[in-house]
Amino acid sequence: MREELRANTNNGSGANFIFRLAKGLSVFNNSQLRNIIIRCSSQSFNNSYTNQDYDDKYYKRAGNAIIGTALVSWIAYKLYENKGHVQVKAATPTATTTTTVTNIGVYNPNLPNYTLEQVSQHASSDKVWVTFKQGVYDITKFVSEHPGGDQIMLAAGSSVEPFWLLYAVHNNPQVLNMLESMRIGNLSAEEAKQATSNMSDPYCNDPRRHAALKPASVKPFNAELPPSLLVESFLTPNELFYVRNHLPVPEVDVSAYELEIEAEGTKKTVILTYEELKKFPKHTVTATIMCAGNRRSEMTKVKTVKGLDWGAAAIGNATWSGARLRDVLRLAGIDEDSKEFNHVQFEGLDMDPTGKPYGASIPFWKAVDKRGDVILAYEMNGQPIPRDHGYPIRAIVPGIVGARNVKWLGKIVVSKEESDSHWQQNDYKGFSPSTDWDTVDFTKSPAIQELPVISAICKPSPGQTVTVVDNHILVQGYAWSGGGQKIVRVDVTIDGGNSWHVATFDHQDETPSPQHWAWTLWSARIPIPKGSKNIEIWAKAVDSSYNTQPESFKNIWNLRGVLSNAYHRVPAELKWKR
Amino acid sequence: MREELRANTNNGSGANFIFRLAKGLSVFNNSQLRNIIIRCSSQSFNNSYTNQDYDDKYYKRAGNAIIGTALVSWIAYKLYENKGHVQVKAATPTATTTTTVTNIGVYNPNLPNYTLEQVSQHASSDKVWVTFKQGVYDITKFVSEHPGGDQIMLAAGSSVEPFWLLYAVHNNPQVLNMLESMRIGNLSAEEAKQATSNMSDPYCNDPRRHAALKPASVKPFNAELPPSLLVESFLTPNELFYVRNHLPVPEVDVSAYELEIEAEGTKKTVILTYEELKKFPKHTVTATIMCAGNRRSEMTKVKTVKGLDWGAAAIGNATWSGARLRDVLRLAGIDEDSKEFNHVQFEGLDMDPTGKPYGASIPFWKAVDKRGDVILAYEMNGQPIPRDHGYPIRAIVPGIVGARNVKWLGKIVVSKEESDSHWQQNDYKGFSPSTDWDTVDFTKSPAIQELPVISAICKPSPGQTVTVVDNHILVQGYAWSGGGQKIVRVDVTIDGGNSWHVATFDHQDETPSPQHWAWTLWSARIPIPKGSKNIEIWAKAVDSSYNTQPESFKNIWNLRGVLSNAYHRVPAELKWKR
Repeated sequence: MREELRANTNNGSGANFIFRLAKGLSVFNNSQLRNIIIRCSSQSFNNSYTNQDYDDKYYKRAGNAIIGTALVSWIAYKLYENKGHVQVKAATPTATTTTTVTNIGVYNPNLPNYTLEQVSQHASSDKVWVTFKQGVYDITKFVSEHPGGDQIMLAAGSSVEPFWLLYAVHNNPQVLNMLESMRIGNLSAEEAKQATSNMSDPYCNDPRRHAALKPASVKPFNAELPPSLLVESFLTPNELFYVRNHLPVPEVDVSAYELEIEAEGTKKTVILTYEELKKFPKHTVTATIMCAGNRRSEMTKVKTVKGLDWGAAAIGNATWSGARLRDVLRLAGIDEDSKEFNHVQFEGLDMDPTGKPYGASIPFWKAVDKRGDVILAYEMNGQPIPRDHGYPIRAIVPGIVGARNVKWLGKIVVSKEESDSHWQQNDYKGFSPSTDWDTVDFTKSPAIQELPVISAICKPSPGQTVTVVDNHILVQGYAWSGGGQKIVRVDVTIDGGNSWHVATFDHQDETPSPQHWAWTLWSARIPIPKGSKNIEIWAKAVDSSYNTQPESFKNIWNLRGVLSNAYHRVPAELKWKR
Repeated sequence: MREELRANTNNGSGANFIFRLAKGLSVFNNSQLRNIIIRCSSQSFNNSYTNQDYDDKYYKRAGNAIIGTALVSWIAYKLYENKGHVQVKAATPTATTTTTVTNIGVYNPNLPNYTLEQVSQHASSDKVWVTFKQGVYDITKFVSEHPGGDQIMLAAGSSVEPFWLLYAVHNNPQVLNMLESMRIGNLSAEEAKQATSNMSDPYCNDPRRHAALKPASVKPFNAELPPSLLVESFLTPNELFYVRNHLPVPEVDVSAYELEIEAEGTKKTVILTYEELKKFPKHTVTATIMCAGNRRSEMTKVKTVKGLDWGAAAIGNATWSGARLRDVLRLAGIDEDSKEFNHVQFEGLDMDPTGKPYGASIPFWKAVDKRGDVILAYEMNGQPIPRDHGYPIRAIVPGIVGARNVKWLGKIVVSKEESDSHWQQNDYKGFSPSTDWDTVDFTKSPAIQELPVISAICKPSPGQTVTVVDNHILVQGYAWSGGGQKIVRVDVTIDGGNSWHVATFDHQDETPSPQHWAWTLWSARIPIPKGSKNIEIWAKAVDSSYNTQPESFKNIWNLRGVLSNAYHRVPAELKWKR
C-alpha cells in the first residue's frame, strides 16, 4: 500500500507529505473503506463563519492564535478510488482558500524567493517551514507551543491550506496575522497554485440543515435550536436536534455497510452488516444526549474558555432503537463477566486529518450492563437515523456525554485501554478553576462519561420582556442528569434564593433511576412583587442522588468550558398586563 | 396471644394501654423473638442529656416542643418471658423519670383530683388525658399538631413516662413546660407510682462506648469522633466508628439467630441461621457509610433545622464481609430479572414503640445487581460486627445512605412496595429551602438512597490556631460520593475561590466507579500570603460524574437538615513560625 502511494509521489514538497499520509492510512481498514461514498464536486471553500470552531483543538492563550493541523482525507480517498466497495469521485484541483485578511500570503518583494523543493527540505523539527498562498513561513519556534502537539508536523515542508480546509478555526484574522509574523519569503505564483492542487471542500457533501438550527460553527457543522423552541416538545424532532460534528459527515452506502467488532488480545473479529444488526432484538430507549460544552457561553463570561460558543440548547431528547450492544458483544463471544477488558472503543467513519477515525470509548461495564441500555441505534424517533446524527448506525450510550455516542459507527474494539483518540485523551475533561493552558496535564483528569445534573430556563429568553398576568409570570425549561439519575425537583427563584418555588413537571418519563435517561420538562408560575420592573430568574435541579447544581461559574470554571452546569440565571424585563 | 395479654390487664388505665400494645405485638414474629435476649436490670433513668435527639421525630415549630410517643418494649418482652428461645429478665418496677424542671407534675392543691380510672376514660380522640408524675393533663387540642401523628394516642388515658424513656427528646424543659400548660388536675401519690410501675431504662443494656465518641444524643446513642481523629486512618477502627442508633441496641443470641426472607405475593419464606449465612461465598467490600445528617450543624446556622446536631464526622470507612444479598435472594428463589419486585425491605431487631422493628428499604435493582455489592455482613474490619454496628448481621448497602444499612437485621421482605416505616416514608428525604413544617408533604420527595458528593476539612478544626511553616499550612480532610462514584478532584481555597489548590490524595482505593464505595483522604499544602492572620479555608470535591458540591447552605437548606454537602468553610487563625 505504501509502495503504491510512493508511486504517486512527485519530487519536492509532496514527498514527505505523502509518505506521512501513507502512515496515517495504515489505520484505515477495509470495512471502513467499504462503507464510504465520496461524491464531492468541485467547490470553492467559503470560510465566512460567524462562529469559529474551537472545540476540536485548543489554544494556549486566547490572544495567541496558532496554526493547526489537518490532513485532507480526500487525498486518501482519491488514492483508493475504485478499489473494493469505495465509490470515489475525484475532487478537482480548483479550490482555493480565501480569507477576509487580504494581505496575508501576498507576494512581498522585500523578501527572498524559495521553491517548493526548498520548502520541503525544512520539514524536520530542527527547521519547520510551511507555505500559505505565496508566503513562506518559518514556524520552527512555534511548533513546541502547538497544543495539538506533533500533528503540526504533518504540514511541515508544505502548504497549510489543505489542513485548514478541515479545521476552519484557522481561517480567522488572529491566526493569519500570527502566521504572517513568521513570514520569511515567497513562492512563485505557479508554485503556490501547485502547492494547493487537489484541494476541495471536505464539507461539500454535508447534508442540508433546518433553518432553525443556529450554527456555533459551520465546518464542521455544529448548531442548536433557540431554547424557546427546544422545550416545545418532549421528543426533539430529528431535524431540530442539535448537531455536534467534529469532521465532515461521511456518506455511507448502507448496502455495503459493515460494522467490525474486535476483541483485543484475541483473534476474534466479527463483521456485521446493517441487515444483520437489524436482526438482533430491537431495543428502544428514550434518551437525552447533551454536548459537554452545553451552556459554555455562560461560563466564558467569567473568563474566556476555548470551545464552541454553545448556548443552552446543545441538548436534545429522542427515542433511539437498535440492537443492544451487550447482545452484539455476546454474539461476538465476549463474556460480560470478563476481567480482560476495561473499555469499549468506538470508531466513526468520519476521519481526522491523519486518516484516523473519530474515536471515543466507554467503560466496559457500561457496555455490557443489563441496565446500561447501550444500543447500536438505526432509528431516531422512529425514523432511520439522519445523516447528521450518525446514519446508518450510531452508538447510543444513555446517561453519557454526547462525545461518546459515536456517530457513523464503523468499528468497535473491546480493550483493556481507553480509546487513544484526541477526543478521549486530550479533550472532554474537567479541571480545577486554577488550571490554565500553562499548567494543564490532560492525563490527570478522567475522560468525561456520566454528566452532572443540569437545568436551564428556556422561556423567557435572557433579556426578554415578559408579561405579568395575575401577578405571575410563567417560566419554562428542562432539567437532566447523567448516569440514569432522575430529576426529583427543580427550584426557581427571582429574589436571589431568598424564596424558592418548586417547579411543576410537565413531562417526565416513568422509568426509575438508574435507567432514567430522558430529560424533564418543567414550568413554574412565579408570583411577582407589585411594581417589579426587572428580575433575574434562577433555576437549579436536584437529581435522584440528591446531587444539585453548583451556584456559580466562577468556582467551576475550567479552561475548556465543559460541564457548565451552574445555576441558570436569566434576566427579564417585566410588562404588567392592565 | 392477645388473650394472654388481656389476662395481665388490670382495671383502669392499664386496659387501653395493654390492648394497644397487644396490637403492636402482632408485628412480632417468632424468628425475631428467638433472636432477642433482654437482660435489663433495675436502673434509674437518668436523662441528663447534653444533646437532644431530634432525629427520630420532628417537631412542627422550633419553639413549640411537644409530647412524643413511645411504647416500652420491655413490657412486651416480659410477657414473652421464657417462651421459645427468648431469654428475658424481668425489669423491676422501681425506675422513675426525673427532670431538671422541678415543679412539673408536682401536686397542685388548686386543681381537682382524679383517679387513674377516670384518666383512662379519656382515651379517645374526643378527649385525651395523660398523666406525668402527679399531674393530669388534657392534651386533646394538641393531638392534631403532633408531628408523629396518631402514635400519640398510644399514651392516651395513661402516663407519658414510659414513652419518654424511649424517646429522651421529651425530657427537656420546653416539653415539660408545654405539658404543664395543659394541666387540669392531680393524681394521688400512690396512683402516680402505680401508673409508672414496670418501668425500667430500655437503654440499660446498650454497650459501653469509646470515650473519644462525642455524643449527639445518649439515648438512643448517637456519637461521632472529633474530625481531626477521623482522618487518622483510611479504615476507621470499629470502636471509633460513628454510631447512629434509632432505638436501644438489641442483644442477640447468635446461636438462636435466624434471618427470615420473604417474597411478597408468594408463599416463599426462607429462614437462615447465622452459621448458614456464613456458608455463602464470603464477599468483602471497603465501603464508607454516612448519616444523611452529617454536617447538619453547619446547615442549622442558616436557619434552625430539626435533627441531631452532627458535626462533620457522622461518617466512617470500613471493610465489611458477609454473604452477598443477591446470592441469598437467589437461594430464596428470587429471580434477579423479576418484574414482580421493586424494593427489598429490611427489618431490624430493634423495635419502635409499637413493637414494630426499625425498617428501611432499598431498590430491588440495587439488591440484586452484580455490581451493587450489597452484603449481609457479619464482619467489620475483620472482626465480628460490634453490637453498636449491628451484631450479628448488618445489611451493608454501599453508596447508599446509612439509614438503609439496617443493623441487627431480622427480616428481609422482597416487595413491590417500599418499606412503610417512619424512617423510609416520613424522614430521610430532601425538600426545597422554602418548604417548612406547615407545607411539607413527605409523599412528594423520594426517600434518600444514593448520597450526593461531599467533603470536609478535618484539620485544622474550626477556629484552631495553625502554624505557618515555610509560608504554607497543611489542610487535611475526606471526600466521598454515593452511588459508587469515585472522587476525582478536591479543590481548596483560602481566598474565597479566587484561587483554588488541587489537593493530593493520600489514600484512595483503586476500584473504579461505579463500584468505588470508599472515601478518599486528601491533604493540601496551601501557600499563605505574607502577614495573613486569619483565613477561611474552603473545600469542595468533584466525583466521577463530575458532580460537585453546592456552594452555600442557604440554597440547599431543608427542614430536616439532611444532605448538608455545601462547601466546607473552616476559619483558622495563623501563627507564623519564626
